[in-house]
Amino acid sequence: MNFSSKLVEEAVNEFSKLPGVGKRTALRFVLHLLKQKNTDVEHFGKSIITLRQDLKYCKSCHNISDKDSCEICANSHRDNSIICVVEDIRDVMAIEHTQQYRGVYHVLGGIISPMDGIGPNDLNVESLVKKVSNGNVKEIIMALSTTMEGDTTNFYLYKRLKEYNIIVSTIARGIAIGDELEFADEITLARSITNRILYENSLLNK
Amino acid sequence: MNFSSKLVEEAVNEFSKLPGVGKRTALRFVLHLLKQKNTDVEHFGKSIITLRQDLKYCKSCHNISDKDSCEICANSHRDNSIICVVEDIRDVMAIEHTQQYRGVYHVLGGIISPMDGIGPNDLNVESLVKKVSNGNVKEIIMALSTTMEGDTTNFYLYKRLKEYNIIVSTIARGIAIGDELEFADEITLARSITNRILYENSLLNK
Repeated sequence: MNFSSKLVEEAVNEFSKLPGVGKRTALRFVLHLLKQKNTDVEHFGKSIITLRQDLKYCKSCHNISDKDSCEICANSHRDNSIICVVEDIRDVMAIEHTQQYRGVYHVLGGIISPMDGIGPNDLNVESLVKKVSNGNVKEIIMALSTTMEGDTTNFYLYKRLKEYNIIVSTIARGIAIGDELEFADEITLARSITNRILYENSLLNK
Repeated sequence: MNFSSKLVEEAVNEFSKLPGVGKRTALRFVLHLLKQKNTDVEHFGKSIITLRQDLKYCKSCHNISDKDSCEICANSHRDNSIICVVEDIRDVMAIEHTQQYRGVYHVLGGIISPMDGIGPNDLNVESLVKKVSNGNVKEIIMALSTTMEGDTTNFYLYKRLKEYNIIVSTIARGIAIGDELEFADEITLARSITNRILYENSLLNK
């Protein structure tokens, strides 16, 4: 594409580096910005720069935070003997949104994926093992995605953690609330039968 | 959504103002940027700010440009007695890409759309009329979209321009090259029959 302006070309190139954004979408973004107020666009640009420069990660759970310790870890009402292991901060947000979990988190920053060249050393694994080895941890809840990579990561973490005297659990997989049995895939249905729970326990979560 | 960081929240809000970007996509962009190098993200932010601050518009055709006059208007090989009227710079880029047009452009900056509160005064209409009234213009080619708004704008411009001794033409509408007749919509097929051209003329464009 010939943009007849170096400035536009550069901005389009930058936007098209974002995931799922091609040159056409990037150009649409640029044309949209050109119609906005100068101050608004400046604010947009600055918010991106300060985001990357000033954002901190919680020293304990690796969640994003404006301080050294995130709101969840700093909250004395949360039970820090239960740690939920997640892939990234979107999972933290999703679980927090349910308002059902009172423990703390550990953000791995990804999952083991040899295809993408991501091994255990690229993830926040050692700090998790260290936290567990320090004692005070009763349970680790694995909440990774049910893909090959997620299962590999689960298995790796389980092997690393089994020498310590803790419970390692995983979030329940099964038919989603509101879904009909006949449309569920076989594996999910099979898992939900194998891992069935007592009826009175299921009512506790209502 | 609770982002556990004001910086992330602000960046997500800014990204979600872009067309077609919701909070989830915006968060995906933000998480992507957080994984990039500090200098790269700074470059991205700065390119947005300088884009809006330093970009100029061609004083003649309103195309984007790094100088006062765009490359097309400044090119002495282009025929400035033929003006192609388009909605925005994406159309200029599309037509330039064909390498078939040797005239100049006039970018309206939108089309008349009462539903969106856009009237003729919000568009670059007066500068077009002025250019025509100065003489030297032989033909105006309308290349607006074939929507209700495009037709309205075509008609408005035609009324404004008909008092001058110029040709007002419109780009041909018809079955696209490679398309099959049986799948064409009725209106397009009807127009392509009504506005048929001599066979030997059609070969000129090959």
